[in-house]
Amino acid sequence: MKIGFLGLGQMGHGMAANLIKAGHEVTLYNRTREKAAELDAPIAATPGQAVAGKEVVFTMLAHDSALDALLHGPDGILEHLPPGAIHVSCSTISIEFAETLTKLHASAGQRFVSAPVFGRPDAAATAKLFIAAAGAGEDLASLQPLFDTIGQRTFVMGDIPSRANLVKLSGNFLIVAVIEALGEALALVGKGGVDKAAYLELLTSTLFSAPVYKTYGNILLEQKFEPAGFAAPLGQKDIRLVLAAAEALNVPLPLASLFRDRFLTLIANGGEKLDWSAIGALAAKDSGQPSGPC
Amino acid sequence: MKIGFLGLGQMGHGMAANLIKAGHEVTLYNRTREKAAELDAPIAATPGQAVAGKEVVFTMLAHDSALDALLHGPDGILEHLPPGAIHVSCSTISIEFAETLTKLHASAGQRFVSAPVFGRPDAAATAKLFIAAAGAGEDLASLQPLFDTIGQRTFVMGDIPSRANLVKLSGNFLIVAVIEALGEALALVGKGGVDKAAYLELLTSTLFSAPVYKTYGNILLEQKFEPAGFAAPLGQKDIRLVLAAAEALNVPLPLASLFRDRFLTLIANGGEKLDWSAIGALAAKDSGQPSGPC
Amino acid sequence: MKIGFLGLGQMGHGMAANLIKAGHEVTLYNRTREKAAELDAPIAATPGQAVAGKEVVFTMLAHDSALDALLHGPDGILEHLPPGAIHVSCSTISIEFAETLTKLHASAGQRFVSAPVFGRPDAAATAKLFIAAAGAGEDLASLQPLFDTIGQRTFVMGDIPSRANLVKLSGNFLIVAVIEALGEALALVGKGGVDKAAYLELLTSTLFSAPVYKTYGNILLEQKFEPAGFAAPLGQKDIRLVLAAAEALNVPLPLASLFRDRFLTLIANGGEKLDWSAIGALAAKDSGQPSGPC
Amino acid sequence: MKIGFLGLGQMGHGMAANLIKAGHEVTLYNRTREKAAELDAPIAATPGQAVAGKEVVFTMLAHDSALDALLHGPDGILEHLPPGAIHVSCSTISIEFAETLTKLHASAGQRFVSAPVFGRPDAAATAKLFIAAAGAGEDLASLQPLFDTIGQRTFVMGDIPSRANLVKLSGNFLIVAVIEALGEALALVGKGGVDKAAYLELLTSTLFSAPVYKTYGNILLEQKFEPAGFAAPLGQKDIRLVLAAAEALNVPLPLASLFRDRFLTLIANGGEKLDWSAIGALAAKDSGQPSGPC
Repeated sequence: MKIGFLGLGQMGHGMAANLIKAGHEVTLYNRTREKAAELDAPIAATPGQAVAGKEVVFTMLAHDSALDALLHGPDGILEHLPPGAIHVSCSTISIEFAETLTKLHASAGQRFVSAPVFGRPDAAATAKLFIAAAGAGEDLASLQPLFDTIGQRTFVMGDIPSRANLVKLSGNFLIVAVIEALGEALALVGKGGVDKAAYLELLTSTLFSAPVYKTYGNILLEQKFEPAGFAAPLGQKDIRLVLAAAEALNVPLPLASLFRDRFLTLIANGGEKLDWSAIGALAAKDSGQPSGPC
Repeated sequence: MKIGFLGLGQMGHGMAANLIKAGHEVTLYNRTREKAAELDAPIAATPGQAVAGKEVVFTMLAHDSALDALLHGPDGILEHLPPGAIHVSCSTISIEFAETLTKLHASAGQRFVSAPVFGRPDAAATAKLFIAAAGAGEDLASLQPLFDTIGQRTFVMGDIPSRANLVKLSGNFLIVAVIEALGEALALVGKGGVDKAAYLELLTSTLFSAPVYKTYGNILLEQKFEPAGFAAPLGQKDIRLVLAAAEALNVPLPLASLFRDRFLTLIANGGEKLDWSAIGALAAKDSGQPSGPC
Repeated sequence: MKIGFLGLGQMGHGMAANLIKAGHEVTLYNRTREKAAELDAPIAATPGQAVAGKEVVFTMLAHDSALDALLHGPDGILEHLPPGAIHVSCSTISIEFAETLTKLHASAGQRFVSAPVFGRPDAAATAKLFIAAAGAGEDLASLQPLFDTIGQRTFVMGDIPSRANLVKLSGNFLIVAVIEALGEALALVGKGGVDKAAYLELLTSTLFSAPVYKTYGNILLEQKFEPAGFAAPLGQKDIRLVLAAAEALNVPLPLASLFRDRFLTLIANGGEKLDWSAIGALAAKDSGQPSGPC
Repeated sequence: MKIGFLGLGQMGHGMAANLIKAGHEVTLYNRTREKAAELDAPIAATPGQAVAGKEVVFTMLAHDSALDALLHGPDGILEHLPPGAIHVSCSTISIEFAETLTKLHASAGQRFVSAPVFGRPDAAATAKLFIAAAGAGEDLASLQPLFDTIGQRTFVMGDIPSRANLVKLSGNFLIVAVIEALGEALALVGKGGVDKAAYLELLTSTLFSAPVYKTYGNILLEQKFEPAGFAAPLGQKDIRLVLAAAEALNVPLPLASLFRDRFLTLIANGGEKLDWSAIGALAAKDSGQPSGPC
C-alpha cells in the first residue's frame, strides 16, 4: 500500500520501520531530516509531498500544535492528501483538536481516523503496541492489516474519532494514578522499615500483576528517572488534556487535579528532563526521605 | 497440629475449613456460636478454652477492638495460650495494636506473628489467599505448612510483626486507588459517549491486566454494590488505619486523604451497607450522571 | 475629558454612570444597545466609533473573548483609538491576554493600562470600588482623577499591566477560599448542632471581621444563591484563569484545583444560574445535609 | 471569688494574671512550678489542692491528655472539686473529651462549662480574648464577670459544653484556611513579579480587612516563623481534632485533609519548632521559590 508516515520520534520510528519491513511503499517526513534518514525509505521535503498520491497517511506527533503545523498551507497535508485517502492520527492529541481534524478532512473530501497507541518505544519497535481506534467502520476495516503490522491488538471505540483520543487520554490518566499510588505506598512502607523490593514482589505477584505496576514499580524502586522513556512535560500535557476534556464534559476529577499539581511541582523544581514517573518520588520527598533527583 | 481458630466471619470460615480439611485438630471460637456450628470441629465456650493447650492459634477479626476483646481477662487468650505457643493474627489491624500485641505476648512468654491475608471470601474458601507474614524466622518456618494450607503463596516481610500489617494496609490503600481511578476514568469516558464495557475490555487486556482491575471494573460497570463482599465501613476503617500509620511516620498521603473523604461522603449519604467499591461511583455522581445506589 | 466606555453590564453600567455624573463627555458602546440607552450619554454604533477621538477608553467585559471581539477589524478599537490615547481595561481577563493587549496597543502607538476592580454591582453604582492598577506611571497619574470618580481607592501594582490582572485573579481566588472554608465550617458545626447564625456572629465579630465573611456568611446561612450577584460560570472562569496563570509560572495551587472541581460539580448538577457562592453549599450536601438548590 | 487556675503556659499565664489583678483569691497549679512562681498568688502542690474549696476552677492545657492527667487519682480535680463548683475548661480539647468531662463532672455532682478562647498570648495578657462558652445557662450567667475579666466579649453557644469546643476547633480550621490561601496567593503573585507587600496592603485594606489576614499576611511576608506564637504541632493537633469531629459526624472536609498533609510535610521536613503559619510557606517551596526555614 502507498503510505505516508509523518513524525519519526521514538515512537514513530519503530512504527514506520515495521510498515516498511512489511513491504509497503512508505514515504517519510520529519521536521528534522536526520531521524528519517536512518530508515530505508524515501524522505519527503514537505508534509505535502509525503502525503501526495497516498492511500493512507499516518501521523505521530508530540502534541496538537506539532500536528497542526503539518496540516495547513500550500505544503500541508490538507492541500495534498488525495480525496478518499485516510489520515490516521496516532498522536495523543486533545479531544477538541480531534474534532477539528474530523471536520477539516470531511470538508476536504478526505477521511479521518483516530488511532492512538499504548506502549513505550520498545513496544513500537517490536510491533507490540495496543491500538485504540475510532472512525468509520469501513475505514477501520481497511486499516486493520496495517494496525496488525504495528501493534498486537486493536480495540475499536466506535465511529467518532475523538472517542479513541478520550480513551487514550484516560488510559494515561490511569497510568499516572498507578505511579502516584505506588509512590505514596512506597513512601509509607519505606519509611516504616519494610523492604521495598520484597513489597513490590508481593504486589506484582498477586493483585497487581499487571505490566504497569512492574514497569513503574521498578523505576520508582531504583529511582531511575533518566533517561526519560516518556518525559515529564509530555505527561503534564496529557493530564492537561484530560482536565480540558473533563471540563468540557463537566466531570470533576480530583485525581487529575492532584496529578496536575504534582507535575507542576516536579517541573518547578528542575524535573523537566526526567521521566514522568518522577512525580511518584514526590511523596517520599514530602515525607522527608531522600527521593532521588528532584 | 493442635490449633485454635478465633473469628469465623466470611474470611475466617473458609480459612478454618481448610485447616480442618487438612487434618488438624482445630478448636473454634466465635462470638456468635452459630457460625462456628457449620464447621466440623469442636466449639469452645470462651476464647481461653479455644487456645488452651494449643501450639498455634489463628485470629481473624474485623478490627482492633474485636480482637482486643478476646485477649484480656480470666477467659482471654493471654491468660490461656501456653508459653511458647504462637498467636498468628490474620486480621487487618492497626500498626499500633500489632506493636502492642508483640509486647504483650513477649511478656507472657508467648510468640506473636502477623500474617494478614489478601483475597476476598471466595479466595479464603479455595485456599487461594496471599499471605504477608512477619515475625521471628523460626516461627515463620514452623508455620509455613499451615500457611500453605490456607493460601497460595506467603511473602515474608521481616521479623517485626507490625510490618506485615503495614504491608496489608498499604495494599488495601492501593486497591482503593484502583477503585477511585477507575471510577473517575469511567465517569469521564462514559459521559464522553464511550462504550464502557469495551473500554474496560481494552484496559484489562493490556496494561491493566491485573485481577484488581477486572474485579472492580466489572462491579463499577454493573454498579453491583450489594451484597457487599467487603463493606464500606471496613474500607473506611482501613483507610483510617493507613492515615494513622502515615501520621505516626510523618508521611503525607494526599490520595489517602481523598479516599477518607470519599468514604465519609458515601456513608453520609446512606451507603454503609454497600461494597467499599461504591466510592468509585461518586465521581459519576458528582458529574451529574446517574450513579446507582448512592 | 473625552471618554469612551465599552461594556455596560451590571458593573460597567454603574461605573459609566459615575463618569457621566462627574461631567465627562462619555460615549457608550454595548453589544446590546438597550443597556446603554438607560444612561444619559450618546451611544456609538460600533466599538470604533466609541473610541474615535477619545483621550481615555474604558472597557468592562465579561471575559477575554468578549473584549477581543471589540478590538479587531475595521470597526474595532485598535483601528480607531487615537495615538497616545489610553485603553483602560477593567475586565477580569487572563494574564496572557493582558500581555497581548499591552503589545498590540504599543504597536499601534496607543497606551494600555490594566485596572481591574474589586466590588459587586452595588459598589460600582456607589463609586465604592477598589481598583488595582498597573501601567506606565505617567498614565496612572493622569488617570487618577477618573479612578477617584469610580472607586474609593486605587492600589498601584507596578508598571507591567498584566500584574494588576494577576492581583485581581488572585483576589477572586481568595474570595473563593473564604466561600469554601465557610461552607465546610458551616457543614461541620451545623451537623454538630451549633446555631449557625450565632456562629457567624462570633466569627465576623472577632478574627474574621472582614466584609467578605459577612457577605458570604449570610448568603450561605440563608442559602440565597438566586438571583446571582456573580454567576457561577464567571467564578469558574476566574479559577480557570488563576490555574492558567499558575501553570504558566509553574506554581501548584491545591486550593485552586479543589475549587475547579467544586465549580464543575455545581454546574454538572444544574447550578449554572446560581451565585458562585453556591459552591459553599456542596460540603453540606456531601455530608448528607439538605443544602438548598443544588 | 475563690478560684483555682491550672495550666500556666503562654495563654494561661496572662489569663490568671488578669483574674489576680481583679482581686480574686486565685490558687495556681502548673506541672512545672517555675511558671507559677512569676505570679503573685499561692501555688498548690497538686491539682487537688488547687481546686479544693473553690467555687470556680479554670483549666488551660495544651491537649486532652495534659488535662486528663490532672483529673484522676487521689490528687486529682474530680476527687477534690467541691459539689456544685464549676470547672471551666478553656483548653482546645476534642469533642469526645468534652463529652467525657461533662459526664464525669455530672456524676460527681460538679458542673462543667467549656469556654475555649480565641486570641494569641498578647491578647490573653491584655484581656482581649474572645470566649466561646457553652454550658448550663445559670452557670454561664454566674461566670460572666470572670469572662469579662479575661476577655473582651463572650459568645454563648448553647447549653451543651462540647459545642463550644466544636466552634473553637472550626475557628482554628478557618484560620488555617486563611494561612493556606494566603500562602498560595503569595506564591502565585510573588512568582509573577508582584510586590508582595503592596499586594497585602491592598487585600487588608479592602475585602480582607480582618485581623487574621493582617497577622498572618505579615508573618508570611517576612517568613518570620520563629519564635512560634503557636507551634506547628499544636496546629496539627487542632486539625486532627477537627477531622476526628468531622468523622464522627460524617462530614467530609477536603480543606482539612489538605491542611493535615501540609502539617505532616512541614514536620517531616524539620518544622516542629516553627509557628503553625509556616505551612503557608509550602506553596512557595513547591513552586521552586526560596521559602525560608522549611
